[in-house]
Amino acid sequence: MQTITVYLDYLCPFAWRGLELAHVVAPQLGLELELRHFSLEQGNHPENQGLPRHAPVWKLAEQPLESSKSLWAFLASHAARQQGKAAHLRFALELFRLRHQHRQALDEQTFVEAVGRAGLDLERFMADLEDQETRRLELARDLEEAGERAVFGTPTFVLPSGDAAYFRFTELTTEPELAVPLWELFTSVLHNGAHIETIKRPRP
Amino acid sequence: MQTITVYLDYLCPFAWRGLELAHVVAPQLGLELELRHFSLEQGNHPENQGLPRHAPVWKLAEQPLESSKSLWAFLASHAARQQGKAAHLRFALELFRLRHQHRQALDEQTFVEAVGRAGLDLERFMADLEDQETRRLELARDLEEAGERAVFGTPTFVLPSGDAAYFRFTELTTEPELAVPLWELFTSVLHNGAHIETIKRPRP
Repeated sequence: MQTITVYLDYLCPFAWRGLELAHVVAPQLGLELELRHFSLEQGNHPENQGLPRHAPVWKLAEQPLESSKSLWAFLASHAARQQGKAAHLRFALELFRLRHQHRQALDEQTFVEAVGRAGLDLERFMADLEDQETRRLELARDLEEAGERAVFGTPTFVLPSGDAAYFRFTELTTEPELAVPLWELFTSVLHNGAHIETIKRPRP
Repeated sequence: MQTITVYLDYLCPFAWRGLELAHVVAPQLGLELELRHFSLEQGNHPENQGLPRHAPVWKLAEQPLESSKSLWAFLASHAARQQGKAAHLRFALELFRLRHQHRQALDEQTFVEAVGRAGLDLERFMADLEDQETRRLELARDLEEAGERAVFGTPTFVLPSGDAAYFRFTELTTEPELAVPLWELFTSVLHNGAHIETIKRPRP
């Protein structure tokens, strides 16, 4: 089965919409989703400005938990991943919905709620989240990989062809009759022979 | 007849490819092209960083001719525009080709060559170019309008629907069988109900 890799940050409403889209489309097109993390806090950090994406000096995975708006959610995401890819995807979707539909904070209460909605084993999740050192190592690896790919925003999708792009849209689309054509439009842009690099609206 | 407005900077190879595309596509789709200018030198100028696009402090149209790589070409473009829209389009295409295919400098010799290839009246062109003050006023107005639209790069296309976007691709496409579908892909992205704001490849 071919894989779409999606780079996500739980802070980002565009990443939420992108993941909902991919979640609808993947089964329709016989594709598997692989979730990866990219950190907007790290990517946009003043100390990393002007540095190559693969060589940041300010690294989120090394920061104190309290100093970051996103670190804990990333560690929770890695804890959920320990229960398998499908469980991880369900957790990520529920956490995004709690954050961006229900406006909940990215804190332990919300993680526990997402675990419940996604049907994960809570005890195991909590034990895995408590093993912070291992989760930080996993996150560091994820963010390094994103840096090597020069990911700069979320959601960024990597297609089975190897083509990758940031894909930002504002209207949530989950009906398959709209979602599949939207996805196909995105992939057509990336596969067109003119090698389209960017389509971007000005924002007055 | 419906109009596509194209924002151009003669320095930019992507603007050249974009104009060639629009030039092939417009007659096929019964559209008229309207050329406008956006300045990368002004847009990226350190003194304008962090300012709103519509309120720059460093303005290209007020700079000495020798200090800029693009100002003279913009003034030549406005001189060509005095001979009508069709003449302006032919001149712009030829100047872009001389710059980006033949690697010629954006200087008077090249302008004269573009005038010849485009079939413009050379004497009139030179007289209009010599009226630098009027050309600078026209350019200032163009760049103000681009600023109000928050244009940030070239080529930026404004469709008859009012949707606008920067459109960057690396492979020149002039055969109508490729150019028309490429254009339709671009317009489909801008007209999709999900309101796509950005598709952008990371550049490792």
